[in-house]
Amino acid sequence: MLDIARVRADFPILSRQVNGKPLVYLDSGASAQKPQVVIDTITRAYSEDYSNVHRGLHTLSSISTENYEAVRGKIASFLGAASEDSIVMNSGTTEGINTVAYGWAMPRFEPGDEIVLSIMEHHANIVPWHFLRERQGAVLKWVDIAADGSLDPQAVIDAIGPKTKLIAITHMSNVLGTVVDVKTICQAARERGVAVLIDGSQAAVHMTVDVEDIGCDFYAVTGHKLYGPSGSGGIYIRPERMAEMRPFMGGGDMIREVRRDGIDYNSPPMKFEAGTPGIVQQIGLGAALDWMTALGMDNIAAHEADLRDYASQSLAGLNWVSVQGTAPGKGAMFSFTLEGNGHPHDISTVLDKRGIAVRAGQHCAGPLMDHLGVAATTRASFAVYNTRDEVDALVDALHLCHELFA
Amino acid sequence: MLDIARVRADFPILSRQVNGKPLVYLDSGASAQKPQVVIDTITRAYSEDYSNVHRGLHTLSSISTENYEAVRGKIASFLGAASEDSIVMNSGTTEGINTVAYGWAMPRFEPGDEIVLSIMEHHANIVPWHFLRERQGAVLKWVDIAADGSLDPQAVIDAIGPKTKLIAITHMSNVLGTVVDVKTICQAARERGVAVLIDGSQAAVHMTVDVEDIGCDFYAVTGHKLYGPSGSGGIYIRPERMAEMRPFMGGGDMIREVRRDGIDYNSPPMKFEAGTPGIVQQIGLGAALDWMTALGMDNIAAHEADLRDYASQSLAGLNWVSVQGTAPGKGAMFSFTLEGNGHPHDISTVLDKRGIAVRAGQHCAGPLMDHLGVAATTRASFAVYNTRDEVDALVDALHLCHELFA
Repeated sequence: MLDIARVRADFPILSRQVNGKPLVYLDSGASAQKPQVVIDTITRAYSEDYSNVHRGLHTLSSISTENYEAVRGKIASFLGAASEDSIVMNSGTTEGINTVAYGWAMPRFEPGDEIVLSIMEHHANIVPWHFLRERQGAVLKWVDIAADGSLDPQAVIDAIGPKTKLIAITHMSNVLGTVVDVKTICQAARERGVAVLIDGSQAAVHMTVDVEDIGCDFYAVTGHKLYGPSGSGGIYIRPERMAEMRPFMGGGDMIREVRRDGIDYNSPPMKFEAGTPGIVQQIGLGAALDWMTALGMDNIAAHEADLRDYASQSLAGLNWVSVQGTAPGKGAMFSFTLEGNGHPHDISTVLDKRGIAVRAGQHCAGPLMDHLGVAATTRASFAVYNTRDEVDALVDALHLCHELFA
Repeated sequence: MLDIARVRADFPILSRQVNGKPLVYLDSGASAQKPQVVIDTITRAYSEDYSNVHRGLHTLSSISTENYEAVRGKIASFLGAASEDSIVMNSGTTEGINTVAYGWAMPRFEPGDEIVLSIMEHHANIVPWHFLRERQGAVLKWVDIAADGSLDPQAVIDAIGPKTKLIAITHMSNVLGTVVDVKTICQAARERGVAVLIDGSQAAVHMTVDVEDIGCDFYAVTGHKLYGPSGSGGIYIRPERMAEMRPFMGGGDMIREVRRDGIDYNSPPMKFEAGTPGIVQQIGLGAALDWMTALGMDNIAAHEADLRDYASQSLAGLNWVSVQGTAPGKGAMFSFTLEGNGHPHDISTVLDKRGIAVRAGQHCAGPLMDHLGVAATTRASFAVYNTRDEVDALVDALHLCHELFA
């Protein structure tokens, strides 16, 4: 098992206080905190080795390019991709999914072509598809979840029709913590010639991901949730799909030659990386992935499973708390409402007075909120640096909310 | 005048050595180095105040949001925009120009509609327009420069025809240093109902920019050239144009409501900012703009004019060096070739042995290279932290190149 006290010591922010109380950070689902090694890597990159990448021959440019390009391989290893050429580096999941929407879907969707989505997708994995609906007549087909928040893969497979071109689905719900059996979906989709895009924003933080085993076409992750810098990320794209894509953003680096009357594009994956990239953020993401790998994804998952079980039991003891999502094997993520008048915004504010950071609102999941019939929830999301004591602190503070708002 | 020794002391990297020599960094046109205050701001943001923005009510989220959103006003002030609502924050010029290409141009261009470009545009301000040519039949109209590298604004105005919808033009060439009279162009364009996009990547680093005075529709800048972090930036968009635009990337934050069957977008500028943004990079950019403003843009310009004059004279004394671009009022940017066999790549390598970082190649300006009839140049680009001594070091090293390659 991990020594969580040592893990916590890696995070300078965790020793700070909020409103006179030790910070209890239960908002990692929105964005994770950063270990010192990531901060130090950023500092070093700017203080000692900084230069633009790819286009320079001088020493600093070579160092920067080497450090930056090394991250492509780290992302590939982290996601189990067979080749680093399947990784497009970018600013995160939103850019990744938009790259697929604009680069792969837009040129091949005819009016009436369908995209299958689960009802628990994050807006990042909905809005780009609404664009296709608004602009070229794509049809969005929604698959509902069961009462416990689980998603039957067969329901997704059954939604595939002759006009289905894409399944866009989360690997782990950012609201319910539900883990989706994406491998079964991908297998069936492949037999039917349908591409699958997986939003791995949450899942990749908490479990080992192997895109080759899953058999997906696209797998998007975002660095700031992976203990890395804001504005970092990447997307795995299966080589056959990458070959089908046209470029998304235009600019330097993604071209081989630009003339007055024409243009030759660079080879993939560079073809999909325009302009000066997020050099230092990506280098920082590399440090974050190294840090996670050193801890061990299985160890991270084991610790978080313990937190999940402990929190599940603790919250189950409060019969005035309704937790949304109790699917087996879910992540350590709890969206809940309180009986009575406690609006999630007020609950969040009371918790904050105790130093506890949680999120309140729709969690960028409007259709799921409609489905659940709630206007908003409070969400406590756990990461590897959290502890059972912090679960206790949450439960204590919820008792206070219950007294205040019941 | 600025005390350049003190300015240099702000940059930790400038005290390092390269190949046993003090670093002489003459590659700021590709990316500028970062002052300590920017690095410290990044460190503080991650170590003390980090959280996602906009969606949280807890203390850290409020601090992050406040620090992040404050940058919008800093960019607005820096560019002379009347309102911070005219600023879309992004990862840099490439994303900014693509936002305009996809969000404004794509839905309104008919086959045969024209975009007027100067021959000295950077690929970031060419490739998105080639996309429009390839995908929907737009016509690119190129305006040549004079022999000294200057651009007659009347030549740009004369290129406007009844089918011209957009002029996309640089404010300062990244190869020649030529400063373009964009105000005259904007005035004439406005009278003819033609929009003007200005690539301010280089200009905003070296001179005071006032978008209201210029009268442009779009003005794109990139943070990493403005002494700020990689992956930071912004674009000024005139309110009337912003109202005409459809969203570019889809995701969280840019929506007001997402349902199964429809979507309501957020108000501009948020409508054009999808997903978790480059939180800490933007906060770092704010620190960089504060740092520049404290030095004073006029002081920066005066120092760089001195460097330009000194370097111009020094290089003019080498009759085996051909400098490309000698337009009056040009920036401190020198692209050159050497008589003899000295390929720019080899020159760059020799200079690097002396600790001098310059760039060699096409500088993301293929059409300009064709126009100049050169395959590549070596480019020395100066910033506020450079000195006359560094010009001397460059000239000394060029003598060595001349001996080696003559």
